[in-house]
Amino acid sequence: MLRVGINGYGTIGKRVADAVRKQPDMEVQGVGKRSPDYVAVNADERDYAVYAADESRADGFREIGIDLAGTVDDLVAESDVIVDATPSGIGAENRPLYERHETPALFQGGEDATVAEVSFNARANYEEAEDADYVRVVSCNTTGLSRFLAPLHENYGVEKARVTLVRRGGDPDQTGRGPINDAVPDPVSIPSHHGPDVQTVFPELDIDTVGLKVPTTMMHVHSVNVTLEERPDDVENVTELYRNEDRVLTIPDYAGIDGAGTLKDLAQDAGRPRGDIWENCLWEESLTLQGQDLYCMQAIHQEADVVPENVDALRALEGELSSEESRAITNETLGIDLTHLHDRTDLTADRRTPDGSLADD
Amino acid sequence: MLRVGINGYGTIGKRVADAVRKQPDMEVQGVGKRSPDYVAVNADERDYAVYAADESRADGFREIGIDLAGTVDDLVAESDVIVDATPSGIGAENRPLYERHETPALFQGGEDATVAEVSFNARANYEEAEDADYVRVVSCNTTGLSRFLAPLHENYGVEKARVTLVRRGGDPDQTGRGPINDAVPDPVSIPSHHGPDVQTVFPELDIDTVGLKVPTTMMHVHSVNVTLEERPDDVENVTELYRNEDRVLTIPDYAGIDGAGTLKDLAQDAGRPRGDIWENCLWEESLTLQGQDLYCMQAIHQEADVVPENVDALRALEGELSSEESRAITNETLGIDLTHLHDRTDLTADRRTPDGSLADD
Repeated sequence: MLRVGINGYGTIGKRVADAVRKQPDMEVQGVGKRSPDYVAVNADERDYAVYAADESRADGFREIGIDLAGTVDDLVAESDVIVDATPSGIGAENRPLYERHETPALFQGGEDATVAEVSFNARANYEEAEDADYVRVVSCNTTGLSRFLAPLHENYGVEKARVTLVRRGGDPDQTGRGPINDAVPDPVSIPSHHGPDVQTVFPELDIDTVGLKVPTTMMHVHSVNVTLEERPDDVENVTELYRNEDRVLTIPDYAGIDGAGTLKDLAQDAGRPRGDIWENCLWEESLTLQGQDLYCMQAIHQEADVVPENVDALRALEGELSSEESRAITNETLGIDLTHLHDRTDLTADRRTPDGSLADD
Repeated sequence: MLRVGINGYGTIGKRVADAVRKQPDMEVQGVGKRSPDYVAVNADERDYAVYAADESRADGFREIGIDLAGTVDDLVAESDVIVDATPSGIGAENRPLYERHETPALFQGGEDATVAEVSFNARANYEEAEDADYVRVVSCNTTGLSRFLAPLHENYGVEKARVTLVRRGGDPDQTGRGPINDAVPDPVSIPSHHGPDVQTVFPELDIDTVGLKVPTTMMHVHSVNVTLEERPDDVENVTELYRNEDRVLTIPDYAGIDGAGTLKDLAQDAGRPRGDIWENCLWEESLTLQGQDLYCMQAIHQEADVVPENVDALRALEGELSSEESRAITNETLGIDLTHLHDRTDLTADRRTPDGSLADD
């Protein structure tokens, strides 16, 4: 059993902890937490061993009845591997601590790529992490773009990708962040950093990105254009390609899913923990071919899509299972299986008569 | 077993169906649904018998592989009682159908009070529904106010209540509704209809309400003032009163819960289905006494708080269990037990030395 320490129990850390706990080959050694708030109480209620960020913060935890297992320094010493899920930039500051204990670590996409030897996406470059000690799981947006681009890259070739990222202003519990009532170019310089970040996964890929942020908290939405090297016969070939991807949820036209609100409602109805959507959400109706140019829109749940990637990155570090093997375990244990929406459209297709009307049962 | 038909499988109907299914003394006969969309697929995935609103709509359901159990007319005939969870105003149009089949029914608070013999809140007037055939479960806001006012009414007497309701613009899946970037007096006439609606539960209560709506989807927030007939010795007595209420979640100061975003995060962390918060959420720090005047702020999850009330109303109609008995079963089966946050502050209080510092373990 791989003993995994989670340093940082916030939006990503708590989800990664729950995901690791569900794996047959891993266990959670404990979680590092800075503030003794309702989230810390939840960690304790879930019976995670809680480690305070440092000794000076320990009293606050004791005051709400949390028996600390130690400090983060202890957690790093006692774990086989650390998942650093601290806020952007803190991960880099933590790396010397991990090195001192000779504990391998995953970092999140908020860190610069230089924090680790490899920037990781399970679908695109799992194998590259196999000899690494320090791996960076790329950001939610880069994860979403890597998953989207990988099948095109393999099947048709990507001449150039151009993506506008309409980003949520903050997470649902970060309502104090802006913007309100504005769509803000962010960064105003073009290309944004997202394109180069995708190139940490696909070094040869030609991609330009433009970023802005809007007053929403639920999901990012990408407007994607890809000029393909080879034109598909029909856009249906592309749709079928994505229907067969394990971490792309293709949204059929009939479903009445018009945005992030209904997507989250779908996830809640499906009983997903925290309403999480681990997959890219791709509107089938938006997939459009104009000459060599493919267009579409996809939504990315910023709190969730990197969670299975972290689990797979832990296995990649171990070097015992292939990408396909790891992803299959991760998908099954988390329940990444929202295929029922397009299963039903397949069913419809099967049941249609040649003229398109519905056959009798 | 009480066979319950749910007519309308939207925000409220799907939650009531799931709640009824968890009761030991009830079963879901089926659900009535108008549109063959992702929500209908979810009903089918959950193995609810689906009844189309009418025969003309049946083909759309068959096209997505839903084997209909019949139409809503059949559902009404086959059920012991109907929970009408159709959109506001449609319930009243449905009442003749329920009468024709001599099927008792619950209506929701979007209907006028005249739709039923009794307007219902389990905490305040459970007994009044015992001889009724048609009962209206009051709206989310009126439910929240009834729960808040009942303990004050019983313990101190309410001379007058004045409430400003800052209402969410729509539910999370209704992002197409307004307002955006405005706080709109709604209704602009004062008092709003909410005060009279509370009087359908507390006929003698003197209450004025003011309503407006804002561009949020998560929860309503009430700014409450109650002039009490008898002044409590200390505001702590009032806090304690609410800590002992089964459907009031009192938010302790340490927790870092600053609004609906963090409240929903708390509910998600607790593993609540759909992140639902069935309780009033009352900020302890906001409870303030100024002379005879009590002030506070509370948040109300508009999708969820009436759900346990519907379950209790079904039992009230049956007339076999008391309010306390029914609420205890409902609370236990749904998991209305988020007491761990203030349990931990009680623990803190116990563990403090007389000078307020924390005792050694």
